[in-house]
Amino acid sequence: MKIDILTLFPELFRDFLNTSILKRAIDKDLININIINIRDYSKDKHKKVDDYTYGGGPGMVLTPQPIYDAYKCIDTKDIDTPCIYLSPQGKTFNQDMAMEFSQYPHLIFLCGHYEGIDQRIIDKIVTHEVSIGDYILTGGELPTMVVIDAISRLVPGVLGNENSSNYDSFSDGLLEYPHYTRPYEFMGEKVPDILLSGDHEKIRRWRKGASLINTKKKRPDLLKKYNLTEEEKEILRNYNESDLK
Amino acid sequence: MKIDILTLFPELFRDFLNTSILKRAIDKDLININIINIRDYSKDKHKKVDDYTYGGGPGMVLTPQPIYDAYKCIDTKDIDTPCIYLSPQGKTFNQDMAMEFSQYPHLIFLCGHYEGIDQRIIDKIVTHEVSIGDYILTGGELPTMVVIDAISRLVPGVLGNENSSNYDSFSDGLLEYPHYTRPYEFMGEKVPDILLSGDHEKIRRWRKGASLINTKKKRPDLLKKYNLTEEEKEILRNYNESDLK
Repeated sequence: MKIDILTLFPELFRDFLNTSILKRAIDKDLININIINIRDYSKDKHKKVDDYTYGGGPGMVLTPQPIYDAYKCIDTKDIDTPCIYLSPQGKTFNQDMAMEFSQYPHLIFLCGHYEGIDQRIIDKIVTHEVSIGDYILTGGELPTMVVIDAISRLVPGVLGNENSSNYDSFSDGLLEYPHYTRPYEFMGEKVPDILLSGDHEKIRRWRKGASLINTKKKRPDLLKKYNLTEEEKEILRNYNESDLK
Repeated sequence: MKIDILTLFPELFRDFLNTSILKRAIDKDLININIINIRDYSKDKHKKVDDYTYGGGPGMVLTPQPIYDAYKCIDTKDIDTPCIYLSPQGKTFNQDMAMEFSQYPHLIFLCGHYEGIDQRIIDKIVTHEVSIGDYILTGGELPTMVVIDAISRLVPGVLGNENSSNYDSFSDGLLEYPHYTRPYEFMGEKVPDILLSGDHEKIRRWRKGASLINTKKKRPDLLKKYNLTEEEKEILRNYNESDLK
């Protein structure tokens, strides 16, 4: 997978590209990430990339020319290559969208900054306007990293254990069950005995129940959208809060 | 505002602390950020911080001891200091939550990694379990940066222009109107004439209309929750799609 990132702050991606999972994917040639500095494409003699907003108001707006020229320099063999613009106006990002994007061989990300980007360049090059959530951030750089992190985990070969991502929350539409590790007793609290029983079927049912109860308590909206199997309906009926201990 | 971050990957925060807005806030002494390496508090001779999960399954789980000892070293004069754990299990982060957190003088963030964190340490020290959205990420570091970015913008004095954050999407429950800057004509597309009229009242109504239409088209769920004023109801009734051009 090839990823091009259009940004005014290439230096913000330095540490990110060295994070454990992404670094491994890059080293293994599974993902190729290319950071493009929009400012390099400014035709202004002072390399200016922003200007006042028409109609007045605070903040500066990114001018369309440098973004367009930077975008045109990307080698897109595939005309269907998504150009993803991170903005609060976008469709809310979720795991299904991460899965969808992970199928493309090439993705382009456009990071906004300041008050925003000229609407005409959005209309011209952006194919997917995406928001990571209902809150306001300084720029599109952090959300771009979040989206790339979520996508890259789904690219085959990137995660050490191929199965590992299937156990995470949302992969199956439910929240996860709680995890426990050594020591058996920590500040008076013990690991639930069933997890030490060695009975795999009991452990599977306990975890399924914990996952269902967790989702019911914390995210009833997710449980509503979830198609319960007959076994899950039965577990949910017979599960007590105290079974989690 | 004082912020302590408990993490296994302190180096991931280096670039983030140098971002324009946060760096200014730190330089101006408005925000003080302290990164604590959980590994430094491991009592294991190999500085191990994780172990296998009880009951079996892939991935490693963070052991409770190093996290607890790192947490205990934080100087919390205020017993009400929130300890925020970023996880897909959490309450979905939004602008109201950012506003709420921005009122505290001190915040503690706990970043998970690997398969998760031992449930007992979550039960013991975490006051707020927060999720930035319904997708799976490698660790709690990126979401912690996202939440800190959203919060720090709301700390008085951090944004250059005190009013600037009030104009952003979500600040008033609606999406933003489109922005335009020079040149007046870009690849045959012109800036809407009304924005050049100099008539502030007309511009205000155009922007309000664009904001309402934008929200109606892209996020009808937000418009439903929004309390329309009489003027806004009237604008929405009389607004045509073509008025946006």
